[in-house]
Amino acid sequence: MARYVVDVMPKPEILDPQGKAVLGALPRLGFAGVSDVRQGKRFEIELEGEPSDALLEEVRAMGEKLLSNPVIEDFEVHLQGEPEGEFA
Amino acid sequence: MARYVVDVMPKPEILDPQGKAVLGALPRLGFAGVSDVRQGKRFEIELEGEPSDALLEEVRAMGEKLLSNPVIEDFEVHLQGEPEGEFA
Repeated sequence: MARYVVDVMPKPEILDPQGKAVLGALPRLGFAGVSDVRQGKRFEIELEGEPSDALLEEVRAMGEKLLSNPVIEDFEVHLQGEPEGEFA
Repeated sequence: MARYVVDVMPKPEILDPQGKAVLGALPRLGFAGVSDVRQGKRFEIELEGEPSDALLEEVRAMGEKLLSNPVIEDFEVHLQGEPEGEFA
């Protein structure tokens, strides 16, 4: 069994109202020194078989076709437990 | 500047309708071999100052007080670029 993580975030130039809402709420809860907050989605995808480049490519295709909107979002894929990859 | 990631996921025993919706859609797009999908939230928190245990604790407190619902969600915090921590 292989478990991959797909992280989907708004593109940097895209307005992120959810992130701004959190940024605005934090000082009211006593948190200082926060310069920015961005909010996105996280998917855990469990697949049959062992981790492989082929499975990684398949999960990447899921990211492109279903899990992210390429117009306003970037995504990255990594094997759970490993560091995140580059967003694209 | 320090950037931490807060990943928030539904507790394993909690129904995850969004994840189930994605699980159901994947075969219709030609993806086979997917045994489970879970969907959660991902926050990127940018703070003034350098990464430190104190900042990590502060971001963990944000996770508890604002970013997750402890009744139905678990969360983990890690410095961007490092592997994810344990969900709790």
